[in-house]
Amino acid sequence: MTTEVVKQHIVVAQNASGRNMNVPIYRMRGARPGPTVYIQSSIHGAEVQGNVVIYHLIQRLKDMDICGEVILVPNCNPVGTNIKAGEYTMGRFDPVNGTNWNRGYHFDKDSVEQFANTVTPEESVQGIKQRFRAFLSNAIDTKLATPWGLGLAQQLNLKLQQLAVNADFVLDLHNGPVSTRHIYVPEYAKPSASLFNIPHCIFIPNVFAGALDEATFCPWWTLQESIEANLQRNIEFNVEAFTLEMGSQEVINFTEGDVDALSILSYLNAKGALHNCDVKPNDMTRLGVMLKDYKTLFTDWGGMVEYLAKPGESIKAGEPLAKILNIDELDNDNGSRLLNAPCDLIPILHFPSASVLSGTQLYKVFTNYETLT
Amino acid sequence: MTTEVVKQHIVVAQNASGRNMNVPIYRMRGARPGPTVYIQSSIHGAEVQGNVVIYHLIQRLKDMDICGEVILVPNCNPVGTNIKAGEYTMGRFDPVNGTNWNRGYHFDKDSVEQFANTVTPEESVQGIKQRFRAFLSNAIDTKLATPWGLGLAQQLNLKLQQLAVNADFVLDLHNGPVSTRHIYVPEYAKPSASLFNIPHCIFIPNVFAGALDEATFCPWWTLQESIEANLQRNIEFNVEAFTLEMGSQEVINFTEGDVDALSILSYLNAKGALHNCDVKPNDMTRLGVMLKDYKTLFTDWGGMVEYLAKPGESIKAGEPLAKILNIDELDNDNGSRLLNAPCDLIPILHFPSASVLSGTQLYKVFTNYETLT
Amino acid sequence: MTTEVVKQHIVVAQNASGRNMNVPIYRMRGARPGPTVYIQSSIHGAEVQGNVVIYHLIQRLKDMDICGEVILVPNCNPVGTNIKAGEYTMGRFDPVNGTNWNRGYHFDKDSVEQFANTVTPEESVQGIKQRFRAFLSNAIDTKLATPWGLGLAQQLNLKLQQLAVNADFVLDLHNGPVSTRHIYVPEYAKPSASLFNIPHCIFIPNVFAGALDEATFCPWWTLQESIEANLQRNIEFNVEAFTLEMGSQEVINFTEGDVDALSILSYLNAKGALHNCDVKPNDMTRLGVMLKDYKTLFTDWGGMVEYLAKPGESIKAGEPLAKILNIDELDNDNGSRLLNAPCDLIPILHFPSASVLSGTQLYKVFTNYETLT
Amino acid sequence: MTTEVVKQHIVVAQNASGRNMNVPIYRMRGARPGPTVYIQSSIHGAEVQGNVVIYHLIQRLKDMDICGEVILVPNCNPVGTNIKAGEYTMGRFDPVNGTNWNRGYHFDKDSVEQFANTVTPEESVQGIKQRFRAFLSNAIDTKLATPWGLGLAQQLNLKLQQLAVNADFVLDLHNGPVSTRHIYVPEYAKPSASLFNIPHCIFIPNVFAGALDEATFCPWWTLQESIEANLQRNIEFNVEAFTLEMGSQEVINFTEGDVDALSILSYLNAKGALHNCDVKPNDMTRLGVMLKDYKTLFTDWGGMVEYLAKPGESIKAGEPLAKILNIDELDNDNGSRLLNAPCDLIPILHFPSASVLSGTQLYKVFTNYETLT
Repeated sequence: MTTEVVKQHIVVAQNASGRNMNVPIYRMRGARPGPTVYIQSSIHGAEVQGNVVIYHLIQRLKDMDICGEVILVPNCNPVGTNIKAGEYTMGRFDPVNGTNWNRGYHFDKDSVEQFANTVTPEESVQGIKQRFRAFLSNAIDTKLATPWGLGLAQQLNLKLQQLAVNADFVLDLHNGPVSTRHIYVPEYAKPSASLFNIPHCIFIPNVFAGALDEATFCPWWTLQESIEANLQRNIEFNVEAFTLEMGSQEVINFTEGDVDALSILSYLNAKGALHNCDVKPNDMTRLGVMLKDYKTLFTDWGGMVEYLAKPGESIKAGEPLAKILNIDELDNDNGSRLLNAPCDLIPILHFPSASVLSGTQLYKVFTNYETLT
Repeated sequence: MTTEVVKQHIVVAQNASGRNMNVPIYRMRGARPGPTVYIQSSIHGAEVQGNVVIYHLIQRLKDMDICGEVILVPNCNPVGTNIKAGEYTMGRFDPVNGTNWNRGYHFDKDSVEQFANTVTPEESVQGIKQRFRAFLSNAIDTKLATPWGLGLAQQLNLKLQQLAVNADFVLDLHNGPVSTRHIYVPEYAKPSASLFNIPHCIFIPNVFAGALDEATFCPWWTLQESIEANLQRNIEFNVEAFTLEMGSQEVINFTEGDVDALSILSYLNAKGALHNCDVKPNDMTRLGVMLKDYKTLFTDWGGMVEYLAKPGESIKAGEPLAKILNIDELDNDNGSRLLNAPCDLIPILHFPSASVLSGTQLYKVFTNYETLT
Repeated sequence: MTTEVVKQHIVVAQNASGRNMNVPIYRMRGARPGPTVYIQSSIHGAEVQGNVVIYHLIQRLKDMDICGEVILVPNCNPVGTNIKAGEYTMGRFDPVNGTNWNRGYHFDKDSVEQFANTVTPEESVQGIKQRFRAFLSNAIDTKLATPWGLGLAQQLNLKLQQLAVNADFVLDLHNGPVSTRHIYVPEYAKPSASLFNIPHCIFIPNVFAGALDEATFCPWWTLQESIEANLQRNIEFNVEAFTLEMGSQEVINFTEGDVDALSILSYLNAKGALHNCDVKPNDMTRLGVMLKDYKTLFTDWGGMVEYLAKPGESIKAGEPLAKILNIDELDNDNGSRLLNAPCDLIPILHFPSASVLSGTQLYKVFTNYETLT
Repeated sequence: MTTEVVKQHIVVAQNASGRNMNVPIYRMRGARPGPTVYIQSSIHGAEVQGNVVIYHLIQRLKDMDICGEVILVPNCNPVGTNIKAGEYTMGRFDPVNGTNWNRGYHFDKDSVEQFANTVTPEESVQGIKQRFRAFLSNAIDTKLATPWGLGLAQQLNLKLQQLAVNADFVLDLHNGPVSTRHIYVPEYAKPSASLFNIPHCIFIPNVFAGALDEATFCPWWTLQESIEANLQRNIEFNVEAFTLEMGSQEVINFTEGDVDALSILSYLNAKGALHNCDVKPNDMTRLGVMLKDYKTLFTDWGGMVEYLAKPGESIKAGEPLAKILNIDELDNDNGSRLLNAPCDLIPILHFPSASVLSGTQLYKVFTNYETLT
């Protein structure tokens, strides 16, 4: 059993030399019918581990029996990947204007609600899905064709979203700064959280802030709710989308990437994308929080910081999170001081540099978390 | 007649050395009662001409008879002013996370509408204003005191907004990249557009996107509309706020700064902030557009550009805006090409570098503009 | 008479996506024998006007009768061209490590002196040139092949230098920050300064600091001096190299680019590279200084600056160069102050931003200049 | 026994707001005579661990009996410390012009040789030292007072060098990117390498490249050699200077910082700076190389890299150093490849980002190293 890989490149931007910047697309279609899966990585340029995960996915999928199609797009942001500022990659936002590379995907709630009004009680789920996909695809095309043009991040986002518009399952692979593995899961897909081998899960509501996962599930979620409200008809579209945070930015690790690939295959297998596959989710502890309980701790001081609490550790209220050096008081008792946890929490990620200005996102933490069962 | 200047400094941030970064505040209070005026400059670090305008304002106001109080805050963003990237100033957004320095001011529409419900038919305008100011000030304080902290840009914005919360007239001095002078005016204050000597005026609706002018007028506008809806009571608060774009970024010019200062004094005089002052608006042509007709022209190509159309020029549909060099085709007819105006327009500003990627904001232009009378 | 253009691309780097970054090379060879000319532009990424100059050169040369060969390499640094930091191009140095893109060309004085020892009294100038070019080319190849590798800037420089190694006349097209047109001329080629239409000329000694012009003329100059010392034999190699500064960075202008192209054709014509061509140098005033009299004025203060003295203007000692704003003293006599010229001078360029830290190169100026005749 | 700490701040720069940027200086003078020690940290802004080391040194020295004086200057570069570019600190070079912050110290070989000519056979070592220090201090002052000014990095370097000019022992605390602890030692001070608890030592010749350690020892080394040559007089000045690389940049660790402080105290104790102190160098393996054998491995490709070989590990020729991902070949055997060690080596540091362009310094490694005894 070998699945062929069809590779193409699409142009997503032009640089200041007038040269095309393109993105590789790997398509693997199985002999059997099944869902469409879309997986991309590195929309934030410094978040590179997902590229390794896709490498291992392709290598493993070549020897598997795919049902449906898997579309894999590594290194999907060639602009953000290639802006160096010092030794690091300034990959989180467009260096020209500060636009986050992950906020320009398309979702228009009003138009989805209007579409919902066209659904009749008799229309089949399959029929609705087909029409809605055409509708979404057309909306993206229209936006891309706006006569006055669009900003670079949005152009890039829409071209990628067009590749994902027919997918049933969308995985956007990211990294945190210094981070444990964690995953953003739409609330309605909570059971799917346990299909990945990812210990920390954040459940998010039907709110659009511009990211690909939201741009994928918000339309379907909104459509479902509108149809339910309009027609009192229960309906399930089974479209799911996730942002997976595969550890820390600026590093790749092949061994861990293969482990990550297995985690994703476990999900895909459970969703029927693989035939005769025995990959199952690990028996492990998974913790979950609602998005509102996933807190960001900002500093109100500037200075130099040792991050005492490590991502993934359980910290009790009052235990130290960080130790801060005060360069003007090295000769007295104020030379260093501790910052303590305001409540019981688990740090998920922390800032990647010891040097922080006031107003820095020092930690993002789980509070009021629960064990998933 | 000499008005005293009271100068203080407030701390708005701490840098990575743990040192306070502060902002100078100049307060000039007249002997007579009158409105409170708040003027700040350089929230975007590279937009420095406003600092010169404030210099000339202070020098002129010292010899004038102020009614009420004028608060002037030059160089209000010491972080953004001091991030160099090459020879230029990376002043538009926080270099750590891309956050625009001018998007974190406070406005909460729901709470304003709730406040409106507390207004009785009998309450005086003066009484409402006083209560509402205390309400706004308290909301800002509450936000600043959030236990998990706030991002740097938002902390800075809120500390500045607190200085402006009691002002009747708020002027936020900016610059465009390569730009004519232009001004953003809330639609309800359209007559005030002609009180400044600024040739290009953009009228904006009651929509909040985070900037100081919006954060100032949206609450009052919303309050007025809510009271009108609740009580069928016509009410005028006479609070106005503007973003003034004083030409191009990265340059200062003292001679032009004094002209700009006179333009502002003309507005303040008309608003009763100056006694026995004969500064009047110039007799000049002023053009206005609704915000929806203030268009951004993005490129869908990358390359090197000569900006043929200069800011302020009237351009007919089909006339050239820009000439683009194609470094891979210098030996043939595609070596250069023209980009033509899609409709009649006036360029207000253009990108400040010849080197552009696809998706660059090449020009911002007036379309469907009219002459103000 | 039409001269054919042969175009190719060479790879000079790979980006972080693993993609080749290439440079276009245009070669125009005439039917008649003559010198080899090498012209490149934009080794500093923000210095883009030279690309337009090369465009006009190619367009004009197509209709001319070339003697020998002209090699033109626009946009020769695709890395530096494409590093944006804010709206501007961070093109002067490698953003990873600060290495100036124009300091890594090859020159090894000792090995040139050793080569000089191999020249016999009888060897013809042509023979020496041929042998020396092979020697230089071989040295560059050897350096590029070093088993431990080389830094990016040096790799780029050496690949370009290899293209130029057989040239008799090398022109490296640059821009200043905000700048008049000026040219760096090796002292021995002083008469050639008057063959360009460039008003400001800087004469430089036989000292190598890493730039392409120096890397071109230092070997030949050193070889000539060594042979003269060894053999008491007067010898002329007629190899010349110049850095031309074509006005200000970050802008292109097609009209001025054609004027610049004519200036270069005038030089090439005088050097025998064009047949039956009547382009002659303009009758104009040209001023020259020795490098030691081309002074840089650094600030010992930080602040915001209006550049009163414009590039190209004649300024007398004591006249103002700049006016500085002090944001902490806007209410008193120290709010602004003048910086005066320490001696008679002509500003050639100034810093492109109003915002300067202490230790900024405010102006570069001609002192003790003379009129060339 | 408590040693008092005298703290002052000196101004080393002004920022674009016109505000002074200052550096804290901690001076600890013992009751007994002894050497002068100068220790600074963070001349490269992202190399922050030295600040913690100085903190622990001050805390420990407060309870020790110092002979002579110890001058400690943490965070000596407030400009470089505070330039953020993304989440990291762009601290290695001036962001305006690329100038390395550690290359502008003063050394003028010719003037030292001229000074050597003034030394007579009878002059005491103490007398020579005193005269030479005044001579060096005067040269620095003269350079700082140059009428046309100096660049920011050089101004900063010279102001710091003036603080160190009377020191017998100078320690400049740095960090590598991802790095083991290592130390640069002048060849003549090789025995001192074993007085620190640092496992990797690089011995450097009497060559000046601009750094503080070189600027400290090159004058004394040159003076000694000149006097020996002039007068056939053996002479020892006992002035030593080192660059200590305290692990990786962008992180601080208090526990390790105290270990580092002990390592430095061990050196100072051996040099007579501490009375009745029993801190001794650890019994440990120390490896040394000559500078010429401390190799940099540059890439000639761009891509994404896993750093397999960890700093400090012994690697045999042919063993893998790194594994490289090729995003365009993820479906075949070229999707990843290994980079193998060209010879037996010990990696000392590697690049801190997985994303590299061609020409990146991937590793710096010891080759031909030996065990110090």
